[in-house]
Amino acid sequence: MAACTVYSTQSLNTSCFISTPSHTHYGFHQKQVVFYTTSKRISNKRGINTISTSPYVIKCAGGDSQTVVIGLAADSGCGKSTFMRRLTSVFGGTAEPPKGGNPDSNTLISDTTTVICLDDYHSLDRTGRKEKGVTALDPKANDFDLMYEQVKAIKDGIAVQKPIYNHVTGLLDPPELIKPPKILVIEGLHPMYDARVRDLLDFSIYLDISNEVKFAWKIQRDMAERGHSLESIKASIEARKPDFDAYIDPQKQYADAVIEVLPTQLIPDDNEGKILRVRLIQKEGIKKFSPVYLFDDGSTISWIPCGRKLTCSYPGIKFAYGPETYFGNEVSVVEMDGQFDRLDELIYVESHLSNLSSKFYGEVTQQLLKHTDFPGSNNGTGLFQTIVGLKIRDLYEQIVAARAETPVRSAKV
Amino acid sequence: MAACTVYSTQSLNTSCFISTPSHTHYGFHQKQVVFYTTSKRISNKRGINTISTSPYVIKCAGGDSQTVVIGLAADSGCGKSTFMRRLTSVFGGTAEPPKGGNPDSNTLISDTTTVICLDDYHSLDRTGRKEKGVTALDPKANDFDLMYEQVKAIKDGIAVQKPIYNHVTGLLDPPELIKPPKILVIEGLHPMYDARVRDLLDFSIYLDISNEVKFAWKIQRDMAERGHSLESIKASIEARKPDFDAYIDPQKQYADAVIEVLPTQLIPDDNEGKILRVRLIQKEGIKKFSPVYLFDDGSTISWIPCGRKLTCSYPGIKFAYGPETYFGNEVSVVEMDGQFDRLDELIYVESHLSNLSSKFYGEVTQQLLKHTDFPGSNNGTGLFQTIVGLKIRDLYEQIVAARAETPVRSAKV
Repeated sequence: MAACTVYSTQSLNTSCFISTPSHTHYGFHQKQVVFYTTSKRISNKRGINTISTSPYVIKCAGGDSQTVVIGLAADSGCGKSTFMRRLTSVFGGTAEPPKGGNPDSNTLISDTTTVICLDDYHSLDRTGRKEKGVTALDPKANDFDLMYEQVKAIKDGIAVQKPIYNHVTGLLDPPELIKPPKILVIEGLHPMYDARVRDLLDFSIYLDISNEVKFAWKIQRDMAERGHSLESIKASIEARKPDFDAYIDPQKQYADAVIEVLPTQLIPDDNEGKILRVRLIQKEGIKKFSPVYLFDDGSTISWIPCGRKLTCSYPGIKFAYGPETYFGNEVSVVEMDGQFDRLDELIYVESHLSNLSSKFYGEVTQQLLKHTDFPGSNNGTGLFQTIVGLKIRDLYEQIVAARAETPVRSAKV
Repeated sequence: MAACTVYSTQSLNTSCFISTPSHTHYGFHQKQVVFYTTSKRISNKRGINTISTSPYVIKCAGGDSQTVVIGLAADSGCGKSTFMRRLTSVFGGTAEPPKGGNPDSNTLISDTTTVICLDDYHSLDRTGRKEKGVTALDPKANDFDLMYEQVKAIKDGIAVQKPIYNHVTGLLDPPELIKPPKILVIEGLHPMYDARVRDLLDFSIYLDISNEVKFAWKIQRDMAERGHSLESIKASIEARKPDFDAYIDPQKQYADAVIEVLPTQLIPDDNEGKILRVRLIQKEGIKKFSPVYLFDDGSTISWIPCGRKLTCSYPGIKFAYGPETYFGNEVSVVEMDGQFDRLDELIYVESHLSNLSSKFYGEVTQQLLKHTDFPGSNNGTGLFQTIVGLKIRDLYEQIVAARAETPVRSAKV
C-alpha cells in the first residue's frame, strides 16, 4: 500500500516510478523491472519492458485495485492445474497464457485471475540443480527473495517482470510482464514456505495427496501416457520423498484449507486409487472465510445420502463432517468418500451442504457439469476444489466490499 | 361402525339398545352389559349399569365420536405407566382412576384418553393360574374373545362393563364401566396378540427392553425397593422368559412403532444400565403416521451434537438415523445414545429433529421438563415416548379432521 503515495483523483496521468533492481541468480543473470502497471507497454526483444511515451493510467495499491493473493501448494502432478481451471471457471471467462509471449510460459491469465507458477522462481535450472545435487523441492534451488518482492509488488498494484522456468528445456527463459490482476494465484511447491511470502497470502490452500493415491496417479500418467517403467516411477517417488517431507509437506500446517486425497474406505483393502476419500480441512477463525458444513455447524456427522430417496451404485457415497484439531489449529472437516454416477446425486448432495457461498441454487453442480472432462469432476476432489473456488470468490468480494466501505482509510494506509 | 344404524340428525333422543351377553371365564362368572353410552347412568351395587328413565343422547360410532384405539405392548415393569402419563400429558389434563370406583382399578381416565390395562382380561386369577400351571403371559390365562368384543364395542361408541384384575389380591373384581373416550389406550402384555384385537388398533407401540436393561431395572426396583434377593430376581426373569419369548416378544413385528432400550455403546463394556441407547423404530407406509427423521429423510446419518456449539459431559450424546428392515417391514430408525445434562442440550436436539408433529417450537422439551421426575426424562426413553405421544395426537387429529371432511360418508358406513 505504501507504494501508492502518488494516487490522487486529480493526477491519474502521472509519470511512473521504475525500479530496476539487479538480481543475481544461480544459473542466470537478469535485470528485473518493477514498475507501476500501465495501460500500454512496449516489450523489447529480451522481454524486458520499457515504458511508452504516451500518458499512463496508474494502477495503484490504494482504492479498490489491490490484488488479492491466493497461495496453492502441492506436489507436481497433483491436480494444481485442474484446480486452477476450476477456480478460473468460477469467476467466469477462460484462462490463457499471456498473448504473444513465451509459448512455454507457465502463466495463465483470465479477466479476474492471474495464475503464476512458482517454478518460475527456481534459482537453479535443471543443469544447475544437477551440478549442485539439489532437487527442485529444495529451497536452495528457489529464489524466495525475488518471489517475495514480486508478489508484494503485485499485491501493491505494481507490475513485475517475472522470470520463466521452461519446463521443456529446463532452462530459465527471459521474464514476462505480470500486471496486478484482481486475484493473483501463486501455485507451486513453496507458496507457504517463506514466512514473508506466506504473510502476503489472503488465503492459502494445500493439496495433500496421500502416497497411495499419488503412486496410483503417477503410474497412470507416467506409465500409461509417458511409457515410464513401474520401477522408475517408484524410484522417482522415493528420490523426491526426503525433500518433499522436509520442505513441501510442512507447509500444510499454514494452509487455510487443505484438500486431502486418500484411498476409499468404502471398499475394503482397495488399492486401485480410482475411488477416493477426499477431505476438505478448513481452518476456523479465518477472517472472511466461513467453513462449509453438513447439516449442523460444529457437530460431528456422518451421512450416507444413498438410501430411500437417492439410489447410488456400488460402493455408494458417504459424507462426514466434524470439528478436528489439525497441527494445533481448530478446523472443520467435510469428507466425501465415493463418487457421483448421476446428476441427481450431485444436486442432492449440494442441496444439503451449508455455507457454500454459491450465488444460486445448484451452482456447484453447474460448475462440475461444465467440466466433466476435468479429472475428479465426479468425486470429492472436483467437489471440494469447486467449493474452495466459491469460497475464494466470496473472500475476494468481501475484501472488495470492505474496501469500498472505507475508501479513505484504505488510501491512507 | 355397524352399531350406528340408529344415528340420525332427526332422532338424537332415541331409546337405547342393551345387549347382555353372558360370558363364562376360567376362574369366575360374570354378566357383561354392553350398551350405547349415555350422558347419565346409574350403577347398582354389583357395578353393573342400568339405564335411567330420563332421555338419552346417543353417542354413536358415526360422525366425530368414534374412539381411536392405541395399543401399547410391553412386559410388566417396563415403563408402560410412565409412557401413559407422558401421552396423557401431551393431550393436557391429568389421568386418574375412575371416580368412586374400585380403588384397585387399573384404569386411568383423562379428558381425552382412557387407558385400560389388559391384565383386566385375565381369565384366570392368581390361584387359577397356579392350579393350571400357566403364567399371566400365557394366552390361556387371558380372555381374547371378551377383549375383542369390548374393544370393538368401545371403538363403535358403546360403553362396556370391563372386568378388573386386582393386582393386590390377585383376584378378579366386579367390573367397571368404560365409556368410549376420544382415545382408548389398551396397554399390557397382549394388545397385538389376537388378530381381531390387532385389527382394531389405529396405532400400536411395543416397548422393547433388552434383557440387560430389564435385568438392571428389575434389580433396582425389586432389590432396592422391595427387598428381593438377586437370585430371586434372576430366577423370576428366567421363569418368565419362555412364555415371554413365545407370546409377548413376537408382537413387536406388528407394531407401528417400537421403542427399543439397550445398554449404551458410548462406554465400552458398560453394564450399569444407567446410560441407555434407545431406538425409535417407525414403520413406513402407515396412514396418517409420518416418521420422525434427522436432517435428511431416507438417508443414513450419525450425529454427535456435542462439539463446538454444544458441550456435553462424559460420555456425551450420539444420535443415529436411517432406513432399516424390521421383520420384513421397511422402517425408519432414530437412535439416541447417552443422556441430557442440561436444557440447552435438549432444545438443541429437538430443533434438529424433523416431523415431530409438535404444535410449537420446543414442545418436546417443554413436555420433558414438565415431568423431570418421570423415569427417563433425560434420555431416549423419555424423548421417544414424548415424540410418540405427539405422533398419536397428530394421528388422532388427522382422523377427526378426515371424518369432519366426509361426515355423510362416515355416517353411512
